[in-house]
Amino acid sequence: MKALNETIIAIIGTGLMGSSLALALRGHVRAIHGVDNSPTHRLGAATYFDYIGDNLERAVAGADMVILAIPIQAILQVIEQIGSLLKPGALLLDLGSAKQMIVQAMDALPEHVQAVGGHPMCGKESSGPMAADAAMYRGAVFVLCETKRSTPQAINFVQCLIRVIGARPVAMSAERHDAAVAAISHLPYLLSVGLVNTVGQTAQDDPTPWTVASTGFRDTSRLASSNVTMMNDILMANREAILDALVLFDAQLHSLGEAIQSSDEGALRGILETARKTRDDWFKTWQTLRRDM
Amino acid sequence: MKALNETIIAIIGTGLMGSSLALALRGHVRAIHGVDNSPTHRLGAATYFDYIGDNLERAVAGADMVILAIPIQAILQVIEQIGSLLKPGALLLDLGSAKQMIVQAMDALPEHVQAVGGHPMCGKESSGPMAADAAMYRGAVFVLCETKRSTPQAINFVQCLIRVIGARPVAMSAERHDAAVAAISHLPYLLSVGLVNTVGQTAQDDPTPWTVASTGFRDTSRLASSNVTMMNDILMANREAILDALVLFDAQLHSLGEAIQSSDEGALRGILETARKTRDDWFKTWQTLRRDM
Repeated sequence: MKALNETIIAIIGTGLMGSSLALALRGHVRAIHGVDNSPTHRLGAATYFDYIGDNLERAVAGADMVILAIPIQAILQVIEQIGSLLKPGALLLDLGSAKQMIVQAMDALPEHVQAVGGHPMCGKESSGPMAADAAMYRGAVFVLCETKRSTPQAINFVQCLIRVIGARPVAMSAERHDAAVAAISHLPYLLSVGLVNTVGQTAQDDPTPWTVASTGFRDTSRLASSNVTMMNDILMANREAILDALVLFDAQLHSLGEAIQSSDEGALRGILETARKTRDDWFKTWQTLRRDM
Repeated sequence: MKALNETIIAIIGTGLMGSSLALALRGHVRAIHGVDNSPTHRLGAATYFDYIGDNLERAVAGADMVILAIPIQAILQVIEQIGSLLKPGALLLDLGSAKQMIVQAMDALPEHVQAVGGHPMCGKESSGPMAADAAMYRGAVFVLCETKRSTPQAINFVQCLIRVIGARPVAMSAERHDAAVAAISHLPYLLSVGLVNTVGQTAQDDPTPWTVASTGFRDTSRLASSNVTMMNDILMANREAILDALVLFDAQLHSLGEAIQSSDEGALRGILETARKTRDDWFKTWQTLRRDM
């Protein structure tokens, strides 16, 4: 691989993740090409890229590295068609939120291509290039999953790129990644959606819930504002792990409901204390790690 | 009632809510007394009050208004004993998060006392006087519930006090309040607790979930860090409404699980879209109202 600052990078998808990545990479690479089917996205992201267009073939032809920053179904489609478009030794990385299906697809790429699965653990509920933020990746864990097309050099290059944008590379298998994000990301999204729709149902006859809702509701409902196409893809791609997480959550909520129903304050307090301590411990560690970046 | 700036106010409980209220009221009233059983709280809150001690009787004897900023069980206990300690015409207000039990208790106060149920829709997951913030009430809805001891003058006085601290008084029945907060506040807390304990369970064999957890998990798990004694009291005091909200939520989560299980992308997208639109609409309105305060 060339040095990072000699590299031409093509980013497919100029939404929040792709545009933020382009901003974070400016000055660290030779050139950044952007590809997007949406004229609105191309317009919004125009100043972030050295070249922007809707022609995948043209944008990736000379690229040393191609980064897929699009929803999972689109990632899978592009992986199927991109093999022959890439020059020998070119490196493919994706930012998809569920990794097993993508790693499998990357395994089947032609041998002249290198490919690594990636997932940066950052984002916001707003989307599109106008929401882009060069600092978004800073301090975030960036998961890397090896594929059958990952040489040590390719992994090393991606790690270097991740450090340049201020993130923290963490290698793991696609299976472990998918189980973990089902619990800490996809389940919370479903809870947010279920919460908002429960409040919507409660408020049908009497809008009081909307009047009194405040910061607690704002935070627990935030993920429900996520991009629906992106989330729909993720839920389908990580179906099994998500269903497993739902079963565990259902049992937890059932225990809570039981303790409340039977006014068992001892049991209730035990559950609440466990959650408080667990969350406080994680939060302290997480904050420290972010600060140290 | 006297004018607000001639009033002596006693705040029972110098934790986050009581101390923040004392800070917000400074300069607007004649004197603020604080009462707390905890020496740590008294030390932390000492500079916020004109007098601070652990003797309820002494602190409320000369007070024109007494505000109960303590957990619900403690509020109910104080209401039972405070009647004879208050001077004729003195006004009692509480800040408890479930109102039916408290309003019932206030209804039974002696006739020389005036009493209004209150609930400011603000807070943080951190507690204690060191977390106090004079701006915490600014822009927040402050629910008021009439009791059999609420004269129009008492209601009017409390509304005036609420406007002085920058909050927005909204009158409603205790029943409507309790159903609404079960959905927008107590249910989200239970979901946070259930989520954290689900992740804890998932992470028992493999800590990967804790490594990849980030801002989405931080926000959806925040409420799990709330004070356990306070929340335990709330869950017990608002038991029926919370159990109703849990039933509705359970059905919502079941629909989501079904759509994922059967890969019914049409149904899934419909549920996700409804939640996204509902949440976006609420959030826009909420932000505008807060900004206009």
